[in-house]
Amino acid sequence: MGMVGGGRDAFIGAVHRMAANLDGQIELVAGAFSSDPEKSRLSGEDLLLDPARVYGDFEQMARGEAALPEDRRIDFVAIVTPNHMHFPVAKCFLEAGFHVVCDKPMTFNVEEAVELMRIVSQAGKVFALTHNYTGYPMVKEARQMVRDGKLGKVLKVVAEYPQGWLIRDIDAEGQKQAAWRTDPAKAGASSCIGDIGTHAENLGRYITGLQLEAVCADFTSFVSGRRLEDDGNLLVRYKGGAKGVLYASQVSVGEENSLMIRVYGDKASLEWRQEYPNDLIVKYPDAPRQLLRRGNPYLSAEANRFNRIPPGHPEAFIEAFANIYLEAARAIRDAINGVSDAGPYDFPTVDDGLEGMLFIETAVASAKANAWTPFRRP
Amino acid sequence: MGMVGGGRDAFIGAVHRMAANLDGQIELVAGAFSSDPEKSRLSGEDLLLDPARVYGDFEQMARGEAALPEDRRIDFVAIVTPNHMHFPVAKCFLEAGFHVVCDKPMTFNVEEAVELMRIVSQAGKVFALTHNYTGYPMVKEARQMVRDGKLGKVLKVVAEYPQGWLIRDIDAEGQKQAAWRTDPAKAGASSCIGDIGTHAENLGRYITGLQLEAVCADFTSFVSGRRLEDDGNLLVRYKGGAKGVLYASQVSVGEENSLMIRVYGDKASLEWRQEYPNDLIVKYPDAPRQLLRRGNPYLSAEANRFNRIPPGHPEAFIEAFANIYLEAARAIRDAINGVSDAGPYDFPTVDDGLEGMLFIETAVASAKANAWTPFRRP
Amino acid sequence: MGMVGGGRDAFIGAVHRMAANLDGQIELVAGAFSSDPEKSRLSGEDLLLDPARVYGDFEQMARGEAALPEDRRIDFVAIVTPNHMHFPVAKCFLEAGFHVVCDKPMTFNVEEAVELMRIVSQAGKVFALTHNYTGYPMVKEARQMVRDGKLGKVLKVVAEYPQGWLIRDIDAEGQKQAAWRTDPAKAGASSCIGDIGTHAENLGRYITGLQLEAVCADFTSFVSGRRLEDDGNLLVRYKGGAKGVLYASQVSVGEENSLMIRVYGDKASLEWRQEYPNDLIVKYPDAPRQLLRRGNPYLSAEANRFNRIPPGHPEAFIEAFANIYLEAARAIRDAINGVSDAGPYDFPTVDDGLEGMLFIETAVASAKANAWTPFRRP
Amino acid sequence: MGMVGGGRDAFIGAVHRMAANLDGQIELVAGAFSSDPEKSRLSGEDLLLDPARVYGDFEQMARGEAALPEDRRIDFVAIVTPNHMHFPVAKCFLEAGFHVVCDKPMTFNVEEAVELMRIVSQAGKVFALTHNYTGYPMVKEARQMVRDGKLGKVLKVVAEYPQGWLIRDIDAEGQKQAAWRTDPAKAGASSCIGDIGTHAENLGRYITGLQLEAVCADFTSFVSGRRLEDDGNLLVRYKGGAKGVLYASQVSVGEENSLMIRVYGDKASLEWRQEYPNDLIVKYPDAPRQLLRRGNPYLSAEANRFNRIPPGHPEAFIEAFANIYLEAARAIRDAINGVSDAGPYDFPTVDDGLEGMLFIETAVASAKANAWTPFRRP
Repeated sequence: MGMVGGGRDAFIGAVHRMAANLDGQIELVAGAFSSDPEKSRLSGEDLLLDPARVYGDFEQMARGEAALPEDRRIDFVAIVTPNHMHFPVAKCFLEAGFHVVCDKPMTFNVEEAVELMRIVSQAGKVFALTHNYTGYPMVKEARQMVRDGKLGKVLKVVAEYPQGWLIRDIDAEGQKQAAWRTDPAKAGASSCIGDIGTHAENLGRYITGLQLEAVCADFTSFVSGRRLEDDGNLLVRYKGGAKGVLYASQVSVGEENSLMIRVYGDKASLEWRQEYPNDLIVKYPDAPRQLLRRGNPYLSAEANRFNRIPPGHPEAFIEAFANIYLEAARAIRDAINGVSDAGPYDFPTVDDGLEGMLFIETAVASAKANAWTPFRRP
Repeated sequence: MGMVGGGRDAFIGAVHRMAANLDGQIELVAGAFSSDPEKSRLSGEDLLLDPARVYGDFEQMARGEAALPEDRRIDFVAIVTPNHMHFPVAKCFLEAGFHVVCDKPMTFNVEEAVELMRIVSQAGKVFALTHNYTGYPMVKEARQMVRDGKLGKVLKVVAEYPQGWLIRDIDAEGQKQAAWRTDPAKAGASSCIGDIGTHAENLGRYITGLQLEAVCADFTSFVSGRRLEDDGNLLVRYKGGAKGVLYASQVSVGEENSLMIRVYGDKASLEWRQEYPNDLIVKYPDAPRQLLRRGNPYLSAEANRFNRIPPGHPEAFIEAFANIYLEAARAIRDAINGVSDAGPYDFPTVDDGLEGMLFIETAVASAKANAWTPFRRP
Repeated sequence: MGMVGGGRDAFIGAVHRMAANLDGQIELVAGAFSSDPEKSRLSGEDLLLDPARVYGDFEQMARGEAALPEDRRIDFVAIVTPNHMHFPVAKCFLEAGFHVVCDKPMTFNVEEAVELMRIVSQAGKVFALTHNYTGYPMVKEARQMVRDGKLGKVLKVVAEYPQGWLIRDIDAEGQKQAAWRTDPAKAGASSCIGDIGTHAENLGRYITGLQLEAVCADFTSFVSGRRLEDDGNLLVRYKGGAKGVLYASQVSVGEENSLMIRVYGDKASLEWRQEYPNDLIVKYPDAPRQLLRRGNPYLSAEANRFNRIPPGHPEAFIEAFANIYLEAARAIRDAINGVSDAGPYDFPTVDDGLEGMLFIETAVASAKANAWTPFRRP
Repeated sequence: MGMVGGGRDAFIGAVHRMAANLDGQIELVAGAFSSDPEKSRLSGEDLLLDPARVYGDFEQMARGEAALPEDRRIDFVAIVTPNHMHFPVAKCFLEAGFHVVCDKPMTFNVEEAVELMRIVSQAGKVFALTHNYTGYPMVKEARQMVRDGKLGKVLKVVAEYPQGWLIRDIDAEGQKQAAWRTDPAKAGASSCIGDIGTHAENLGRYITGLQLEAVCADFTSFVSGRRLEDDGNLLVRYKGGAKGVLYASQVSVGEENSLMIRVYGDKASLEWRQEYPNDLIVKYPDAPRQLLRRGNPYLSAEANRFNRIPPGHPEAFIEAFANIYLEAARAIRDAINGVSDAGPYDFPTVDDGLEGMLFIETAVASAKANAWTPFRRP
C-alpha cells in the first residue's frame, strides 16, 4: 500500500501502519507523508522505504505509482491527512485507478461527500472508511444480536464519547493534533462532533441499522477563543420511532477515549465500552445480566472470524483497526482477482461517509438554529 | 412519628419505616396507612401499633394526634402516599402544628408547590423532602468537593436514571406501584421524569449548586396505551453557562435503579452510581484517577458524619434514606427544644420541592412544544 | 433483647443494635455494656434505656432479668464482648434460661466450644452466632446454587479476607479495637485468622457444605512486636477431594474489608465480594458469564425471602447482619411460642462455632509445625 | 527472523509472528514450522515465504541459514515448539551463531536450563525468553513503582492464574494444544504450574525483584486419567521475609486467562489483571485508591517508552508480546552493530529461564513430598 499523510508527529498514520502490518498481508511501499517534501522524505527514511517511492506531494505520488508496472505499483492508498485533504486526495487516487482506504470524517462537507460517492461509483474501486470502532469483535457481536432479533425492537440508543485532552488550550499552544482539529479551515464546520461524535453516530448505526431522522444539538466552546465546539450534546430521533441521546466532548476532564454505547430493545439491551472492548454486557428484563467475552465459542461467527488469540487474552484498538484493513484488503484482493461473489465485506463505505457528513452538518445546523432539525438526505 | 400512607403492598412506606428505625431515635406510634380504613387498621396491626392511634383517614389522624397531650402526640408525620395526596396531607398536618417529612415529588403541580411553600413558612415547621439519594455519604463528599473548588468551574453535568421495570405493561395489569405512577390523576403531568428524572435533577443540583435555566425535552411512551411518558431525554442549560444531559427511563430493559451522575469541572470530574454507592470516582486532567471509598479518614467531615460502620463494609440505600431522617429529626428536635443555631441541616426542603416541580413542568412543556423551554420561576 | 458489651467506643455492639432495630421487631431494653459499671451506665443513658435495666456486670444482669416477670424480661441476650468473654457470658445466660446471640469466634478455644455445645444442648435454647456474611442474600443464592447442583461437583474454593488497618502499630498506640484483637489473653491463639480468617472459612462452608480435612498454614507478624499473626495464608483440603486457598491479612495496605470467595465446580463457578454484595458472578465453561443481582425474581426463594427493597437499590452490611437477627428472632419466637416445625432456620449455630474454633486451632498448630495438619474433631 | 515451530494449528507461533510484524521492524524470512516437513512447507506457503528458506527440520535450517551470506541470513530465530524441543533447538542455533528468542518455560528441566545458560554465555548471543506478560506497560509501571520505593518494603505477593479450558478432557480427545501440555514427555514434570504458574512466578519476580526461598505446593489432577496436575496451589516464602500465595489452574471453570497479581508493601499496594491490562490499581493506607491508566504522562518513562497509542485506546496482549520483541530486537541490533552501552534491555533472559525451571521443579518436589521445600539453586 501507499500512504498520504502520516509523517513524523502524526498520530493516526502510525496507527494505520501498525494495523496494516499486523497480519503480515499488507506492505507499505510508497508514500507522500507530508505537505512538506523534506518532511515526507525523512518520514520515508524512518520507514525504511525506497526513496524513489517517497513523494513530495500526493499528486506526484498518484502519477508516479500509476506509471509503474502493474505488479510493482501500490494496490491502494491509505489517506491519513487532516479532514480538508481527504476529498482531493481520494479523488486523485480513485481517478488514477487506485483503491482507497480513508480516515474519517470522509470529507470536508456534504457537498464533497456526494461528489465522492459519484466518483467512487464511477471508478468502480474499493473505498473503505476507517470508522475503526466497528472493527472490534464485540461490536460485531452486538450488531449480530440486533440482526438476530435478540434485542427485539430497538427503542433507545445512548452513545457517548467523552475525551478530556482539549481542556487546556493546547490548540493555541500549537499542539499539532489539537491545532488542526479546532481550525474550521482544516476540520470543517465542527470539531468535537466531527472528530468523535461522528464515531458515536456511526457506531450506533452500525449496531442497530437505524437511520437518523432529526437531531437537536447543543454545542459549546468551553475553552475561550476556540472557534469550533469542544462539547456537543444531542437528542436524536431515528426513523421508526427509536430515540436517542448522543454526546461527545473534548473537555470532559479526566476522560480518555471513553466511547460507550448502550442499545435498549424491548427484549434485551446491550452495553459496550471501547476502553474495555473485550466485554459486551447484555441485560434482560427477567434473567441475569450476561457478560459476553471476546473469542468464546458462544459468540456468533460474524464476531469470531475476527479473532486472533484465545479468550481472556485481550485484543484491543490496533487489532480492531486491523480488522477494517483485513476486510478492505480482502475486498481489494477480490477486486484485483476479479472475484465478485465473496462479499459482503464488513467495513465502512462511502455511504457511511456520506451519512456521517450529513450527521455533522445537521448537528451544526441544529446547534445554530437552537432547534430540532430534520435530516435532508440528497 | 406518625405515617400517612404506606399500608400493606406499599413499597416506599416500608422503606421510610426502616430508615426511621435504623438508628433507634425515632419510633412509629401512629398512622393512617391507607385510604381504606380496614386496610389501615390491618397495617397498624402488622406494625404492632396501639389500635387507638391507627386512623381511618389522615384528617382524623391530624385531629386525633393534635388532641393528645403534647408529650404523647407524634412529633412529625411521614407522608408516603401517591403524589396527588402529598399536598392535602402536608397542609393538614402543618396547619395542625406538626412537622412533616414528605416523599417526592413534593406536590401534584407547581401551583400546589408554591402554596405549600407559603404554608410551611407560615407554620414555622420543619418540612423535609425525601430526595433520598442526597443521603449517601459519597454524594455528600461530591458536593463538598464542588464547594471546596476541587472541580474548578463546573462545565457539564450528565445525570441519568434508567429503569426497566415498566417495559411490560404491568400498569394495565394492575400492579399497584405501576398503576398510580402512570395515572395522570395520581402522578401528575409526568410519570418517568416526575418519578425518577426529578431525582436526577435534584442530585445534580445538590452536588453542583447550579440552577437550571432551560431544557429541551423529548418524551416517549414506548408502551402503547400508556398515558404518561415512560422515557424522557433532556438537554439542559444551567445559569452561568454549564450544560448538561439528563435522562430517565422506565423501559430501559435490564436496568434496575441505575442512577448515575457525572460532573465535569475544569479542574477535575466526578462520577457516582447509586448501585455502587460507596465509591466515588474522581478524574483529573494530569493525575491518576481516584477511587474514594465511604468511611475513610481522607473524606470530608460533611461525608463522614454520616458513617455508621468502617470502610469496606458497604452501607447502602436504607442507610442513605436514614440519613435524611437523621437530619430531619435533628432539625425537629432542635425546633422542639428551641435550639435555633444548630444548623445548617443537610436535608432537602420545600425549596427543593418547588424547584423539582418547576423542573417537571418545564420538561413537560418543552416536550409538548418540541423546543427549548426556559424556566419561569414564580 | 439485652446486650452484654457494646458500650461507648465499641464497634460491633452498635452494629448489632442497628441490625436488631432495622425491622422494628426487636427492642433493646437492658444491658451490661462494659466491664466498667460507670461506662455501662453512661452507655445505657446514650441508648435511652431504663436505668434500672442497665447493669454493672453481666452476672448481675442475668440475675436481674431472670428475676423480672416473664413478660417483662428480655427474651435473649446479644453478646458483643471481646472473644475471651464470649463463653462465660453465654454460659451464664443460657443457664439462666435465656436465648443467646453471640459474636464470633464463638469461644476462646476449642475446649470452651465443646463445653458450650453441651450447655446449649442441655439448656434447649436458641444459640445464634453472628457470622454475618452469611446473611447476604447473594451468599444465600450461592449456597442454593451449590445445593441445586448448578455448580456440579465443587473442586476448589478460594476465599480471602484482606484488610489493611493494622499496618500501623495502632494496637501498641492503644487503639481499643486493635489492642484486644492482638492480645493473646483476649483474642485467643490467633489474631488475623481468628478475627477474619474464620469468616472466610465459615463462608466457604456455608456455601459449599464442605468440611475441612487438613490445612497447611503460614502465619506472619509483619509488624514487629505484635504477639499474634497479622497475616495468615493457608492451603486447605476438604473431605471428598476438593482443594482450596484461604488467606486473610490485617496488613494488606489499602484493603478495607475485601472478603471475596470464588467457588469452582465442574459445571460452573461462583464469585462474590462483600464490598459489592448485591452482585454474584457465575461463570460457565461454554456460556456467557452471568451477573446475578439481588432482589430479582430469577433468584431462589432462599435468597429472595431476605429482600427488603427492589433490585438496584443496594442493600448492604447492616441488612445482612439484620438477616441473621431476623432468623434468630424467628427461631426464638417459635421457641417461646412452642412452635417446633417452622425450621430450618438460616443462621449459624453452635456447631458452626465449634467448627470455627477447630479451624483456628488447626491453623495455629499447622503454622507452628510448619506442616500440613489434619483436623481432629472431638 | 526465522521461526522453528508455529506451523498450521499452532497457537503461539502466530502470536510471535504478529508481535514481530506489528512495528514493521522485523521480517519473517525463514522457518522450520513443523517436525513434519510437508506441514512445514505448507505453512511456509501460507506465510508467502521463499520456498528455499522453508526447511524440513531445524537442523537443516540452522545449517542452511548459516550458509547464506551474512546480509541475507536471518539475524535470529524464534523458537515456538513444545517445551521438550526448546533446548535442542536453542543449542543448535546459538552454536550456529544466531541470536535466539524462545518461548517459555525455557527448557524441559533444570539440568537443561543450566546447560543452556552455559551455552548462551559461551556463544555471546542474545537470548530472550517470552514471558510476555512483563511486556505490558502497566506491569513495567508496577516494577518501577517498587524500584522507586513507592510501595515501601514488599510484604506479600498474591499471584494467580486460573484458566478453565481443560475442565473437559480435551487432551484425551486429541486437541493439540491440550495434548502436549499434559504429556510428561513433551511438557516436562508439570502441566499447569509449568505452563502458566511459571508466568505468575515470573511476573511476581519481575515486579518485586524478590527471589523465592521455599514453597509448599498442593497439586491435583482433577480430570481423571490426566497424568500431570491441572491445578496447583502454593504458599511461597521469599528471601528477606516476604510471603506469598501463588496458584494456577486449568480447570477453574469459566476463567479464561485471568492472570492477576497483587503486591502489598508497607506503604502502598498494587493490583494488576492481564484481562484488563491498561489499568493498574494502587492502594494506600490513608489516601484514595488510584487507578493508573496506560499512556498517561504521569507514568514513568520506563512504562511510557512502550506506548503506541494515546491513553484510553486500549493496548493489549499482542502489543505486550511485541514489546518483548522490540527490546530483544534492539539488543540484537546493538549486538550486530557492536553497540555495547545501550542497555539495560527490558526482556526476560536465560537467568529468568533458569529461575523458572527451578520454580517448577521445586514446586513439583514439594507437591510430591507434601511439605515445604526449599529452593536449591545451582
